[in-house]
Amino acid sequence: MMRLTAPVVLPCDEQCTVLRDAVVDVDDAGRISHVGPSGTAPAAAGPVLALTGILMPGLVNVHAHTAMTGLRGLGGDLPLMRWLTEVIWPAERQVDADDVRAGMLVGALEMLGAGITTSVEMYFYPDAVADAVLAAGSRAVVTPGIIAAPGWDRLGTWQQMLEGVSRWIDTDGLRFGPGDRIEVGYGPHAAYTLPPEALAEAGAAAQERGALLHLHIAETAGEDTAIREAHGSVPLLLEKLGVLGSADSSRNARVLAAHAVHLSDTDIAVLSRHRVGVAHCPGSNSKLASGIARLTDLRAAGIAVGLGTDGPASHDDLDLWNDTKLAALLARLVSGDAAAVTAAQALLLATRGGATALGRDDLGTLHPGAWADLVHLGADDAAFAAGLDVPDGQLLANLVWAAGARAVRDVWVAGERMLQAGSSTRVDVAEAHAGLRSRVSRITSR
Amino acid sequence: MMRLTAPVVLPCDEQCTVLRDAVVDVDDAGRISHVGPSGTAPAAAGPVLALTGILMPGLVNVHAHTAMTGLRGLGGDLPLMRWLTEVIWPAERQVDADDVRAGMLVGALEMLGAGITTSVEMYFYPDAVADAVLAAGSRAVVTPGIIAAPGWDRLGTWQQMLEGVSRWIDTDGLRFGPGDRIEVGYGPHAAYTLPPEALAEAGAAAQERGALLHLHIAETAGEDTAIREAHGSVPLLLEKLGVLGSADSSRNARVLAAHAVHLSDTDIAVLSRHRVGVAHCPGSNSKLASGIARLTDLRAAGIAVGLGTDGPASHDDLDLWNDTKLAALLARLVSGDAAAVTAAQALLLATRGGATALGRDDLGTLHPGAWADLVHLGADDAAFAAGLDVPDGQLLANLVWAAGARAVRDVWVAGERMLQAGSSTRVDVAEAHAGLRSRVSRITSR
Repeated sequence: MMRLTAPVVLPCDEQCTVLRDAVVDVDDAGRISHVGPSGTAPAAAGPVLALTGILMPGLVNVHAHTAMTGLRGLGGDLPLMRWLTEVIWPAERQVDADDVRAGMLVGALEMLGAGITTSVEMYFYPDAVADAVLAAGSRAVVTPGIIAAPGWDRLGTWQQMLEGVSRWIDTDGLRFGPGDRIEVGYGPHAAYTLPPEALAEAGAAAQERGALLHLHIAETAGEDTAIREAHGSVPLLLEKLGVLGSADSSRNARVLAAHAVHLSDTDIAVLSRHRVGVAHCPGSNSKLASGIARLTDLRAAGIAVGLGTDGPASHDDLDLWNDTKLAALLARLVSGDAAAVTAAQALLLATRGGATALGRDDLGTLHPGAWADLVHLGADDAAFAAGLDVPDGQLLANLVWAAGARAVRDVWVAGERMLQAGSSTRVDVAEAHAGLRSRVSRITSR
Repeated sequence: MMRLTAPVVLPCDEQCTVLRDAVVDVDDAGRISHVGPSGTAPAAAGPVLALTGILMPGLVNVHAHTAMTGLRGLGGDLPLMRWLTEVIWPAERQVDADDVRAGMLVGALEMLGAGITTSVEMYFYPDAVADAVLAAGSRAVVTPGIIAAPGWDRLGTWQQMLEGVSRWIDTDGLRFGPGDRIEVGYGPHAAYTLPPEALAEAGAAAQERGALLHLHIAETAGEDTAIREAHGSVPLLLEKLGVLGSADSSRNARVLAAHAVHLSDTDIAVLSRHRVGVAHCPGSNSKLASGIARLTDLRAAGIAVGLGTDGPASHDDLDLWNDTKLAALLARLVSGDAAAVTAAQALLLATRGGATALGRDDLGTLHPGAWADLVHLGADDAAFAAGLDVPDGQLLANLVWAAGARAVRDVWVAGERMLQAGSSTRVDVAEAHAGLRSRVSRITSR
């Protein structure tokens, strides 16, 4: 057992409580056993580490293709469909499992450095993704891509891709690794890159195993014209196919819809009644000029919304704090209301919101039983120059609007310290960069 | 004389040229004497410092109230007018010159740490602002606030404020300090906080001295209703008052319009024909839900546009790289065009664009005669994990979209190294923070 103390602890509970002079106890399995003010805490049953800044849960990045760090910046000024078909898919044809391992390692380290402890990864060569996550010491929900688009048959048919995921779960379990760092789920790419039967079969396989199904929905206005004509919309098609489970909870599904930009009121009602989580990706959607998701309406409909960076090739910095700010900024602009999303609400999107969108109550928040995935932000950052002893609202504003990734000093995953004073405790980051460079230089060099 | 070499040098010229394996020579006055590829450079006439990353001009923040770092995060979820009248102006009534000095020092150091070497500062106690800039070793155009709003008469009438600026310039010169670090200009707050004669007199005084006139224009939709009814718009009023000089260049004016969100086509034509510069503040305008300035239209009209963070109390992190990305993201969203503002164009907004908006051709770009205000970004940042030897477009994308402030390692101002491996060479930053805390705790403590 280990105790961490800090002048400020943010459990990221529903109220976004600010605890002053508080403790977080971590048991030997890496889970939290107690959170609360120092004054009322039980006696410490192990070593005590006194921190001087803000202690909070690690951020949850609910939509990423992190292994693309080696392709970062390719075709950065193109819209989605041209970017995919003219630049990225051709480049990815040259990418092998070792490239994926090297790219994911660089990205996982980058995210840990910014306080992002969990990511939902949709990519191919999923074993390599999981290897790299375990090497970096972060946490991921690995949802291998299932796709039937031109050129992708080099990796097999969609049936083979789907069976591969089921076999993986049936062999290694839904979660495995130290601290259950890897969860496996299904990543059917999108309704425009798969036939309906593939979506239906992926849904059935995921529901049978209690696994997450993670797919792109309504990212751009034109991608799903044929589906809209035939079925009304992708959400309506998914509902009809049974992918979303049943509205009466007799058949549960864990579905995470990434992007979800171009939704009608009907679509939002469909997502709401099936408790579909949404991965809001404001940075990617802005950079590719895809549009602005209806964050305020999604929240009003009771939908669990988290934030995603998307892949580093389309939205580049893997810094979920930037998406946190951008989500609030865009919601304020769209509504004309400077309080549309407050600093506290934005912070919860990046933490417990993401975990809830995944169907995980043991991540993104600090309570007994949750994994001790923790981030410590330094009080020495200029964001906190006026001190931590300011009113709660001002402190949260300083954290979200001014500090963010630059203030991250230490990170624990499942109670293990993965970042210490800004440096990885596991991996030589310069070596990881050199490893990626040596892999991808054949693709990206001038 | 000193020579810096780097694998990548970005002069931030109009074409956003990427120089590979290049040198920058700095003369003993702190100005650049040569920029170009190593292969064709003259023999070095002094010490050579071989850098390993990207060397570029310091960023130019063209609209800031940086001294407000001590009030950062106050009232963070309110729209502009309520935020000003209910929270900020009452707090500022308690602010004295020592608070301003302490706040400006923290903010100047924060900006240097992010590679921002010049800022345009509108605030009161301008001597304290200049003191702090000189102590930090950055560069500023100090445009003391001139205002006639309720409560501000404690600092004198607008006439006294205006005379104070003129006297300062007439005594110390338009520019002074080592490396001419301080330029003095006029900061009439806005048309809604000053009578027309104050604007006219400030314009005449500035033109007489070749000084910059820096004011807020059209930040929110409702602020200037009375002026719109009487004169059509603030730009039309300013034109009529002679504040913008004459369109035929017979009477030159240097005018910098901050925000410039709610402009008609006529207003844009007015700004264009008078060569008024615009300080685009996308972060502040989003956070306060003020609106989105017409960046693409301003650029199409040939208007010089730079970027401003605004004050840290309204838009908090003083990180102009974030505004650089946001300017491009918002322009892409508004136009639906993922190439509306490219990475290269965004980079130029933050550098030479800002300098041009100020009427300064010796900042924000690297050419002989310009000040050696330089930033070195580390190739060790994850943004460059695929290496610097990628195509120019990819490199610029990695710089703008992924690296930004977090990759800044070293900064020079007028040839003097002010930041070395991320640390100030002049000031103990922890002491500066403690100094601010001790000053403002009477205002901000719980």
